[in-house]
Order: sequence, then C-alpha cells, then structure tokens
Amino acid sequence: MHTLDVALGERAYPIHIGRGLLDDPALILGRLQAPRVAIVTNDRVGPLYLSRLQGALEGNGVRVDSVVLPDGEAYKDWQTLNLIFDALLGARCERSTTVIALGGGVVGDMAGFAAATYQRGVPFIQIPTTLLAQVDSSVGGKTAINHPLGKNMIGAFYQPRLVIADTATLDTLPERELKAGLAEVIKYGLIRDLPFFDWLEANIDSLLERDPAALAWAIERCCRNKAEVVAADETEKGERALLNLGHTFGHAIETALGYGTWLHGEAVAAGTVMAAELSRRLGWLHGAQVERVRTLLRRAGLPVSGPALGAERYLDLMAHDKKVEAGQLRLVLLKDIGAGVVSATADSADIAAAIEACSVR
Amino acid sequence: MHTLDVALGERAYPIHIGRGLLDDPALILGRLQAPRVAIVTNDRVGPLYLSRLQGALEGNGVRVDSVVLPDGEAYKDWQTLNLIFDALLGARCERSTTVIALGGGVVGDMAGFAAATYQRGVPFIQIPTTLLAQVDSSVGGKTAINHPLGKNMIGAFYQPRLVIADTATLDTLPERELKAGLAEVIKYGLIRDLPFFDWLEANIDSLLERDPAALAWAIERCCRNKAEVVAADETEKGERALLNLGHTFGHAIETALGYGTWLHGEAVAAGTVMAAELSRRLGWLHGAQVERVRTLLRRAGLPVSGPALGAERYLDLMAHDKKVEAGQLRLVLLKDIGAGVVSATADSADIAAAIEACSVR
Repeated sequence: MHTLDVALGERAYPIHIGRGLLDDPALILGRLQAPRVAIVTNDRVGPLYLSRLQGALEGNGVRVDSVVLPDGEAYKDWQTLNLIFDALLGARCERSTTVIALGGGVVGDMAGFAAATYQRGVPFIQIPTTLLAQVDSSVGGKTAINHPLGKNMIGAFYQPRLVIADTATLDTLPERELKAGLAEVIKYGLIRDLPFFDWLEANIDSLLERDPAALAWAIERCCRNKAEVVAADETEKGERALLNLGHTFGHAIETALGYGTWLHGEAVAAGTVMAAELSRRLGWLHGAQVERVRTLLRRAGLPVSGPALGAERYLDLMAHDKKVEAGQLRLVLLKDIGAGVVSATADSADIAAAIEACSVR
Repeated sequence: MHTLDVALGERAYPIHIGRGLLDDPALILGRLQAPRVAIVTNDRVGPLYLSRLQGALEGNGVRVDSVVLPDGEAYKDWQTLNLIFDALLGARCERSTTVIALGGGVVGDMAGFAAATYQRGVPFIQIPTTLLAQVDSSVGGKTAINHPLGKNMIGAFYQPRLVIADTATLDTLPERELKAGLAEVIKYGLIRDLPFFDWLEANIDSLLERDPAALAWAIERCCRNKAEVVAADETEKGERALLNLGHTFGHAIETALGYGTWLHGEAVAAGTVMAAELSRRLGWLHGAQVERVRTLLRRAGLPVSGPALGAERYLDLMAHDKKVEAGQLRLVLLKDIGAGVVSATADSADIAAAIEACSVR
C-alpha cells in the first residue's frame, strides 16, 4: 500500500493506493466520527463490492445503510441526488454519519455533493472503483451534478476525509471505461509532467493490458500530481484550472449529445486534441507535438476528433463554462508538452478553426 | 446607519442597519467582485423594491439580472431552487457574479444555497426585508431548503459578503409577519441576554406599533447577539445551537402541518413555550418564569400552544432534528431566563408531557 497526503491544513487527508484495500476496514474505522455510515453506490458496482464492504464494516460494529443509484452520467441530476437525501432521511442518518462513495466519478460527485449538503455537511469518504475516479475525480473535493444547460454547474468544494483506491477493483472495469480513464491519466503528463508523458508513450500498452504494476504506478503518479495542484489551489483561483485541459471542449460534447452518450474521458480526449490544435494555431506547439498528443490518445483507444456539431454550437455551449470571466472564455492550452497554461488569448475565429479541424465532417 | 461586524477571519463581513439604505448603492458597489449581480426576490417583495434596487445598481454600471420566486415557505424546495439555477445559467452568470437576496428568510435561505452551489460557489449579499430575516436568518451563513421529511435538511454554511438591513422595508411588512419576527427577537433575550428580555417586556408595544427607534434598537441588539454567537461557533459545533431555542418543536409543527401553514416564527413561539415548560419539569425554571415567557410571547401576538398532533407525532418528527446524536435528541432548554443550554437530559416521557401541556386539546 502506498499513501499520499493532500496537504490542506485542517482539511488534509490521505490517499491509500493498493490491491485488496477493500478488505481492510481498519483504514476506514479510524476515520469515522461515529460508528455509522451510509454507502452510496450504483447498480453496476453495488452487486460486485457492496456486500463485501458492508460486511467488513458491520463485522466491526458499524451500522451500515446503503443507497443504490442507477448507473451513468445521465443520472447525475437533481432527481437522482434526491434519492440519496430520501435514503439518508429515511434512515435518520445524523450529522456524524459518514457518507461513503463506492463507485466511479458519477457516484463520487453525487455522494460528495449529498455529503456536502445533507444537514449542511456530514463526513465523507471516497472509495473510487474506476480508473478515472482513482486518478482524478475522487481526489480534491470537487462535487457536482449536471444541469441541462451545463455539466457540473451545481456543486460544492467539499473534501473527503479519506480516499481508498483499491486497484483490484479495476479487474472488473469495462474496457471502454478503462480507456476513458486513460484520457485523464494522459492529461497530467500534458499539463505538468513531461517525464510521465514519456513514460506513458512507452507503457500505454501495459496499461491497456491492465498490468498491475504499471497501473499502480500510474495511479500513484497521477494522485501525486493532483494532490500537489489541489494543495496549492483548493478552490481553483489559478493553477487548478489546468486540470481542466480538454474539458471545456469536452463538456460541450457531453452536453450536446446528452450526458452519457460519450463517456467523460472520451469527450476529454477529443477536447484535448482540440486544445493542442488551438495551441499550434497560436504558435505554441509544433505540428509534430500535436501529432504526439493525438497518437498517444489514439493508442489508448480514445476518440481524437469530436462529433460534427458545427463550431457555432460548440462555442455556444462553451460560453457556459465556469472559467468564463467578463464574457471572455478562458481555455487550458499547452505552451509545450508538459506545460499547460490558462489563456484568454485565442479569439472565437481561432477556436472555431481548431474545432472544425478536429471534428468529424 | 449602524454597522456591526461578523468576525470570521477571511470570511468576515459587515451588517449595516438603518433607514433608507436601499437607496445607497455605494454600500453594495464596493463589495462586488465584478459589475454584475443576480437579484433573487419573490412576487410580494419584488413589486415593492426590485426596480428601486435594480435602478440604483444599473445607474452605476452594474448589469442586473433578476429572478422572482413564488412567495412562501411552501416553495422552499428543489423545484423552486431550480428556478434560480435556470435563471443564472440562462443569463450566463459567471463565477464572479454576485447573487443578492432581496426578501425574507425563505428568499435568503434559497438564494444563499443557490449562491453556495452555483458553479460551486459565487459571492452573495443579503438584503433582508422582514423582521425575522433582519434579526436572524440573514446573518450567519445558514442556507437551506426543506425536504418533505424535515425542515432545512439540505443546505450549506455559506457566509454572505454583506448584510444590509433597511428598516424602512418593515413599513410594508404584513402584521402577521412582524409578529412572527418577534419570536426570534424574544429568543435572544431568553438564551443569552436578560437585560434585553427586560427591555422587551417594557417595549413590546412600541415594537408592535413599529416605532422606528425601538425597532432599530432591537434589530441592532439581535444582530450583535447573533454576530457574537456565529463568530464563536460558525458551523454549530456548540454554542450556536442555542439559537435553535423552540426550533426542534417548531420544525415538527411546520413539517406536520405542511410548510407555510404556520409561519416559522409562530411555530418557534409555541416551541419556545414547550421548551420553557420542559425546563420547568426538569427543575430549572419556576412556574412564574414560564409564565413570564408565555406572557411576553402572547403580548407579541404569537401562539403559545402548539396544534394537537399528539406527543407521539411530535417526537417522531423531532427525531429527524439535526441535533440528534447517537439516536439521542438534544434540545435547547433554559436554565434561567437569559441562560439557554443544549441538553440531552430530558427523556421521552418528560418531553411528551411538556408537549401535551402546551398543545391545544
């Protein structure tokens, strides 16, 4: 087991990474405020891991209630969030009850937002079971639900007390979701970690083959990057925005096609290519560098162009982005591979051209 | 104009109290992060004050969008909250857009919760227009919506940047709401300010006649008490719970009868008598002291007994209270007039007896 710390003062917490950690309830027990938890999961992950986790906790005298949500980004909405509140109130969960998210990014975002707002805030633990959640969404305290007009538009910054990434849960992860997770893995290399990008070019096949050592190493490297960024800028006043490379384009794709049609990682991959192409048009990347980005994403089994929505529709959706300031869109772009930057330099014509160059015709 | 400060370190903010402050946009302008606001109000307060506030801000170059909600506690729910999000997103409000609550407690609670969660948090200003909101709910950062199983069950601690209490807005306040506000005014005397309780006994008629000097003095005294309590215990780990005198009983009444049937202050008044009666049964108050409490509330035009729900129904609803710990109900009671205490001493039989003694038969 490897342990990293997210250094956030009184909100600091550890990330444990290792195989089989789900069977080690001691990691959780020491972090509970009271011997009572509510596990939030979904109808795909629940059948695989819920009873194991529940049994381990109950065997140690913890009262466990659970909520099983329908699976998928399409359910990251008010209606489904209310299922969590109904369950918490129905079971009379108290302010000292810890909410545990057991699942991928959607479960983590929703359980986290429920924990942030139930009785104005209860303790929260993340147990991510997808690659995307283990390397990215479970760390850093961003929680949210979607709105028909924009992704992650309603939420809170709310840090967990603990993150447990049991890499054995990736054994059951569908192929498509593994690949989607790799989009966020590659992101860290692009925005701030060139040696990791080089390593990924050499090891992407091992990751796709789920080589345990390669996966564990990549997850730890990503979490280390994420923890550093979050510790420096918890509420995204600056550097943290770099973690959104490809996301403004990607959110437009997700919103336009209907949440869940493309997986989040898939949309981010296409968006990352758009960001790289735009960076080239601004004179920051060479064509060969854009090709390097495209090639690695393609090797990871990810889409490298977006759907043919037309640039206008993209721009319209992107205007809802949380990084818009005074009507001006700010995008995460690349000054180099390994060097992301938040920039308002590009005008609409540049952005539209990059979108068109990277969309299906 | 009087100004008090809520001492919360980097989240500190001023409360301005005075007549005609709505016409002084400079108070607001200096606190805006960007020249853009979204005013949330309701269909009773909006027609009275919205265009005045909007005009004053627009005249100073601020872009103003507005949302007018239906009036009343019955609308403090997800559906109505979503009207705010729809409006914010429809107008493409940004992270630097300030949400302004213009109205009573319901508007403040909902606008505050929307501000806490829109794009994971935007700046927020409270302009309370009811006595209850000016003396209590606009100060201290508690925001929430109701759930069918419990009042204020979903929300956030989220501090405003500024509170402006224009006492002239009380001129248009319906009589019943003025009286409801007095329940929270009397609360401060009971839990921590005996001299103020004495003053209220001497001046309750002036308050009911809306004597401007008496109202201004009472509002300032309440805000001073509230600011002290909040500064000492922002997220209600201890002392802040005292502000809930009468509220656990009162929330049960509000939930049982349907939100909005009784006004919040009316339910709190009946709940306060129950708390006083229970304190007497525990040997902490004399019968004459309970009578003093009852008499002042009655003189303020408030109910001094609850509806005949039966003690069991009360207890069942009270079990959802946010102060329940390990299944044990904690209540705010009185050790003396001017000395509140949070206590788990009373057993169900004591509580039931106090409820029965203070309910309509």
